Amino acid sequence: MDEFALIRRYFAGHGRGSGVAVGIGDDGAVLEPAPGMQQVQVIDTLVEGVHFPSDLAPADVGYRAVAVNLSDIAAMGAVPRWMTLALSLPAADEEWLDGFASGLHTAAAEYDVALVGGDTTRAPVAVITVHISGDVETGGAILRSGARPGDTVYVTGTLGDAAAGLRGLREGDPVRELLWRFTRPAARVRAGRALRGVATAAIDVSDGLLGDLGKLLLASGVGARLDVEALPISPPLAAHFGADEQRRFALSGGDDYELCFTASGELPDTGIVPVTAIGTVVEGAGIELRLDGEPFDYADAGYRHFADDESGA
Amino acid sequence: MDEFALIRRYFAGHGRGSGVAVGIGDDGAVLEPAPGMQQVQVIDTLVEGVHFPSDLAPADVGYRAVAVNLSDIAAMGAVPRWMTLALSLPAADEEWLDGFASGLHTAAAEYDVALVGGDTTRAPVAVITVHISGDVETGGAILRSGARPGDTVYVTGTLGDAAAGLRGLREGDPVRELLWRFTRPAARVRAGRALRGVATAAIDVSDGLLGDLGKLLLASGVGARLDVEALPISPPLAAHFGADEQRRFALSGGDDYELCFTASGELPDTGIVPVTAIGTVVEGAGIELRLDGEPFDYADAGYRHFADDESGA
Repeated sequence: MDEFALIRRYFAGHGRGSGVAVGIGDDGAVLEPAPGMQQVQVIDTLVEGVHFPSDLAPADVGYRAVAVNLSDIAAMGAVPRWMTLALSLPAADEEWLDGFASGLHTAAAEYDVALVGGDTTRAPVAVITVHISGDVETGGAILRSGARPGDTVYVTGTLGDAAAGLRGLREGDPVRELLWRFTRPAARVRAGRALRGVATAAIDVSDGLLGDLGKLLLASGVGARLDVEALPISPPLAAHFGADEQRRFALSGGDDYELCFTASGELPDTGIVPVTAIGTVVEGAGIELRLDGEPFDYADAGYRHFADDESGA
Repeated sequence: MDEFALIRRYFAGHGRGSGVAVGIGDDGAVLEPAPGMQQVQVIDTLVEGVHFPSDLAPADVGYRAVAVNLSDIAAMGAVPRWMTLALSLPAADEEWLDGFASGLHTAAAEYDVALVGGDTTRAPVAVITVHISGDVETGGAILRSGARPGDTVYVTGTLGDAAAGLRGLREGDPVRELLWRFTRPAARVRAGRALRGVATAAIDVSDGLLGDLGKLLLASGVGARLDVEALPISPPLAAHFGADEQRRFALSGGDDYELCFTASGELPDTGIVPVTAIGTVVEGAGIELRLDGEPFDYADAGYRHFADDESGA
């Protein structure tokens, strides 16, 4: 068996799922879109040494590769269905592949998404691209462009944990509960579904709150005022870092994959994840930070871990 | 403007196309599948130094990245509609990007496929993953698994040109008409459409006729007898190489992106591309080669240009 046949072995037999007429093994997958629904498609790449350290556990790499894409599906309010994988590796290391595949399949099972096709190639470093398709009710997708002055700005869960965990990892002393947010990010699919018809705009926090909210505001043609004291900070982040560092991680940390969204009026039950109001949409452009009502001076820099990279070609 | 904003500039504004409700620029694309049709999804990666030489003209890289995926769509008998791009690059070289984008958009326009989303990241070498979705009539997709003993084996166009052109390029003396087949492969979408309901099985020739036909036969649980003298050889290949080399390129060369298919009975008009009968499906397994009725001894090796890689995770 050649080594790429070996790779394929780890991904065969996972094409079962609703609407999968032909899965892995032909020139392409044959799928049955749900009648009357629109389809949401997302694609995202993780590069070894850029998006994750080379020594990250392969199961975590596999899990993350799926979760970061599911997070985009969640931010649109869609239900994930089908996944394809383009996996480029320096060599077919059986132990690494075994871990990677188990993490990938774990995430796929948790979110009920079927692996329907892929491509395996050789490259000098691991480059993992996942494409996911999901369903959304026609006209129901939550876009970045619908925020209006007077809307409240919300965020799900807590912010800053993943970046703090990753910094600990790089310094050789990670806090397990924080690092977990980096290695096993939760995609807020259930919350995204609950927000259809409620959120006026949404984006997932992959690059940091300020950067991602900035994109949402730009797409909507508005600005925002954020209350820094309102940022949701987890108990472990509060326990291990001072107030200033907590705020830096929460504002610029990225990799948490929470949803940031805007809405006016009452919020529905978004499931198990808490939602926190952190500010208000205003006329104009950009983000004004306030701490206890006073202007908060903050230079957004320094906490983008590996990245010069950017999503959304 | 940061350099990845620069990259995005080359791909913005190309999301128009039928069924595109939201294109590039949000967390995901929102698309409208055609009612009553099945969807075919394919994904394929090109790695610099593995699938193409580093000094290949960037417009050719962009064109190829689309065409090799369209070829898989063609082999299924589908019509391409939407494309997403995951582009990993060492740096945002404006001249390279300009060429790459123009080649990509040229192929997209020729085959009427809309670029609806993407992701740009940094990596040590260029890694280009394209995902394409297409439509096919429900139950109409041509699979690899339907070949039956007694069927005739056919191939579109001519074989071996791309590999011969690539070898010339590496040796510093390419024949332009042959190299063209590598840099600007034609995806046989129109032929694939015409073969629905006619071909019992099909695959595109990306890795070489013997390898790809071998996969088709394996999926169908049959074998084949090929007549080596029947292999379609182009005038430029015949003019520049001896009979033995022509056969090697045609049998193992790869990168031509012709369709190899099986059918019984009459063939329809497949459009502008000629179709050649090259053998017969038989009971059993594997490929038996004959030259003018005599067994033809051939070791399938040596002409896979860069590749240890393999499609179809």
